[in-house]
Amino acid sequence: MTGAPAAVVFGVGPVEGVGGAVALRAATGGLPVYVAGRHPDKMAGVVAAIEAQGGTARAIPCDATDKAEVDAVFAAVAADGRTPRLVVFNVGGNWPQGFLDITPGFLEGMWRQGPLAGLLVGQGAVRAMLPDGGTMIFTGASASMRGKPMFAAFASAKAGLRAIAQSMAREFGPQGIHVAHVVIDGVVAGDRVRSLLPGLIEGKGEDATLAPPDIAETYWQLHLQPRCAWTHELELRPYAEVW
Amino acid sequence: MTGAPAAVVFGVGPVEGVGGAVALRAATGGLPVYVAGRHPDKMAGVVAAIEAQGGTARAIPCDATDKAEVDAVFAAVAADGRTPRLVVFNVGGNWPQGFLDITPGFLEGMWRQGPLAGLLVGQGAVRAMLPDGGTMIFTGASASMRGKPMFAAFASAKAGLRAIAQSMAREFGPQGIHVAHVVIDGVVAGDRVRSLLPGLIEGKGEDATLAPPDIAETYWQLHLQPRCAWTHELELRPYAEVW
Amino acid sequence: MTGAPAAVVFGVGPVEGVGGAVALRAATGGLPVYVAGRHPDKMAGVVAAIEAQGGTARAIPCDATDKAEVDAVFAAVAADGRTPRLVVFNVGGNWPQGFLDITPGFLEGMWRQGPLAGLLVGQGAVRAMLPDGGTMIFTGASASMRGKPMFAAFASAKAGLRAIAQSMAREFGPQGIHVAHVVIDGVVAGDRVRSLLPGLIEGKGEDATLAPPDIAETYWQLHLQPRCAWTHELELRPYAEVW
Amino acid sequence: MTGAPAAVVFGVGPVEGVGGAVALRAATGGLPVYVAGRHPDKMAGVVAAIEAQGGTARAIPCDATDKAEVDAVFAAVAADGRTPRLVVFNVGGNWPQGFLDITPGFLEGMWRQGPLAGLLVGQGAVRAMLPDGGTMIFTGASASMRGKPMFAAFASAKAGLRAIAQSMAREFGPQGIHVAHVVIDGVVAGDRVRSLLPGLIEGKGEDATLAPPDIAETYWQLHLQPRCAWTHELELRPYAEVW
Repeated sequence: MTGAPAAVVFGVGPVEGVGGAVALRAATGGLPVYVAGRHPDKMAGVVAAIEAQGGTARAIPCDATDKAEVDAVFAAVAADGRTPRLVVFNVGGNWPQGFLDITPGFLEGMWRQGPLAGLLVGQGAVRAMLPDGGTMIFTGASASMRGKPMFAAFASAKAGLRAIAQSMAREFGPQGIHVAHVVIDGVVAGDRVRSLLPGLIEGKGEDATLAPPDIAETYWQLHLQPRCAWTHELELRPYAEVW
Repeated sequence: MTGAPAAVVFGVGPVEGVGGAVALRAATGGLPVYVAGRHPDKMAGVVAAIEAQGGTARAIPCDATDKAEVDAVFAAVAADGRTPRLVVFNVGGNWPQGFLDITPGFLEGMWRQGPLAGLLVGQGAVRAMLPDGGTMIFTGASASMRGKPMFAAFASAKAGLRAIAQSMAREFGPQGIHVAHVVIDGVVAGDRVRSLLPGLIEGKGEDATLAPPDIAETYWQLHLQPRCAWTHELELRPYAEVW
Repeated sequence: MTGAPAAVVFGVGPVEGVGGAVALRAATGGLPVYVAGRHPDKMAGVVAAIEAQGGTARAIPCDATDKAEVDAVFAAVAADGRTPRLVVFNVGGNWPQGFLDITPGFLEGMWRQGPLAGLLVGQGAVRAMLPDGGTMIFTGASASMRGKPMFAAFASAKAGLRAIAQSMAREFGPQGIHVAHVVIDGVVAGDRVRSLLPGLIEGKGEDATLAPPDIAETYWQLHLQPRCAWTHELELRPYAEVW
Repeated sequence: MTGAPAAVVFGVGPVEGVGGAVALRAATGGLPVYVAGRHPDKMAGVVAAIEAQGGTARAIPCDATDKAEVDAVFAAVAADGRTPRLVVFNVGGNWPQGFLDITPGFLEGMWRQGPLAGLLVGQGAVRAMLPDGGTMIFTGASASMRGKPMFAAFASAKAGLRAIAQSMAREFGPQGIHVAHVVIDGVVAGDRVRSLLPGLIEGKGEDATLAPPDIAETYWQLHLQPRCAWTHELELRPYAEVW
């Protein structure tokens, strides 16, 4: 039985991040939103922000690298009588590491947050959205497209995630599921950079870093695309970024 | 002196085509629109449709492969006290031809509608939009990305046009001009296919061909992107398209 | 202390396979060859074939997904007073699986044979070959470049491996290590296909499948390239393959 | 009637350049060589060098942008009772130009040396080599793959040429013609750079620029590939090049 449409966003931290911004945009767009992440305290802020706008939101603690936890998120949505029509995968951080210093454990950690979590969320999304269809968006990075020094592990994970997104798009597009992969090529002016590299955003100058609400707007427009004209891949980049 | 913002669309035929749809979308978005094309009778329908919606439009006959004619379009916009903030290049048709049957003249014709016209329109757009910036969108095709039998000439032109778009993006992005390249990968359900290949659109089934208004919506969303999060390239493809 | 030059090939099965052919070609080229793989009985045939040609070879049992076993291979080469100047990574098989049927364990298995084993071998190669340099070649597949239905897991692993190869190339090229990635786009006429899909090779017709000795020749030519003109990536494809 | 095998190289200048080096390598490989270029005095040096090695060579003045002149080269080969089995297209120079300063004539000049000349030589090669097959190699550049500031015109031509090569490969590969595209990504230590930018090669350091004989070796190895394992595209890059 099909429920009322909802959005599910995996990889949500504080309201200032990409996951939070996507959740807010989906709520503004009229969907009840489920946010999933590892930090309930951070997600609480997102839920509060959505409710303050008159929207509906629910936070579900979830480690997206754990199949049972991912499945539980989709089960919770169904138990609420809703069906996901927009699922966003925004999991994973970018940690540089010199090639010779990458341990198997470090590489595995990247892989778990990338291809593994992407598979688990993708499978849950497909199962929930078939046969009526919906939108599944993966957050990529410039490392999804190319490897470079200090980023072998991250690039490996992001390239692997991109391959999963592309495989899904080709398999489930004809069944009505719009799978998109967004390559974020630049510094995101979110909570993570602000705390780890204070001053970086200001130092680069106005509009030289990607504002999460502007990223979220493009995610939402991808969701609105009718099935006769879908985008599978696009990149987002600040105007002054060298590429 | 900077004038009121306007949109300029090159490669406009009847209202049912991509150029016509983009013009209408820009008008709905609030911009006065200049449409440029080789067939005044067809463009008249676009102008009428825009005016019927309460918009402002003007058609200017133009062969986009002729520098003087392209320059005249931009001069006319300026003479009206307006400045382009959105310029769309939608010129060029797709004519298959076996490799051994391609004549120099045929290849040149493709080149004139592709890289040459793209250069002329791109130069006019940059000159008009600097220093305040704006958006320049080029219409590409799957042939922009790869060559294949029967399409050496078309692919050559489209790949060359893409290189121009990419060069422009890297040179003028930091100066505030958003250059985007849209890869249309599929059959467009426009006037051209309807007249040349009657029945094709219906035969492929519902939503299996790209509707020009849906293409136009993505062009408009590209124009709306703030400069901190620009897309340079994306593709548009029907959900059932094999790729 | 630097030893006499040697070749080390990971992922060697019977003499009819790609790993075996590369080992033979390196031996013909004058290098003592270390072959590493999981099946000592199969590797014995490769060693025998090399010795029958008057070459020098040694087989070392090795699961390339295990760091200790990979490190032991490089230690054995050093203990023989030799230094690798050509290291080839030819590990990993292609197992199709419907997207919804991919288990975390299946995906992990692919990842272990792909990015993880590639990292371990790559690290060992770099450590052994610096500072004098050498060649490190990774075997890729068409799935390295794109995902498609039934191959999400394999594509994810191969794309991830490619990112590692590219990161290595950019980091260690300036230090004299030539990292190359060979995209094998077609059916390999090796032992694996012969046993799993009997008749396939014959059915496709003469030269429609890749012969391992011909693949090996290109690997060897990559090794011979002087450092002023290195190839990082190339593909190998039968003449009649559709792509 | 099929004649004895020969090589034909278009875009040959002095013996120190890429065209000259490819001609010498083909002669060393045992083929009589036809060299075609615009400067008979320069080509004379290549013919002399080949003959000094005991090889056979003939220079034919040719502007490769002129169909009649290209056809005359192939006619001369046939009149000598020979059939091309290796044809190399090495035409075209790299001239930077700011985007706003590119004239239609400048862009056309690039196009004539790129896609147009490539088409003419490609058609001649296919006609001469069918039905028995052969090898057709195009010289590309990093600009074949991406556009950037100052190189819109050159990138447009090189991307267009690449599309022609790819279209040819897909159309004529199954008919036994091996079409390859070599992306030269770096400074070539040839006559052109030596005369235009004296000191540049020495300034970059040993092996930091591509030596034409080493480029030529890879061309020759491409020609030797058996049809079960062809490479369509590869790049050549000095070890220290940033990419």
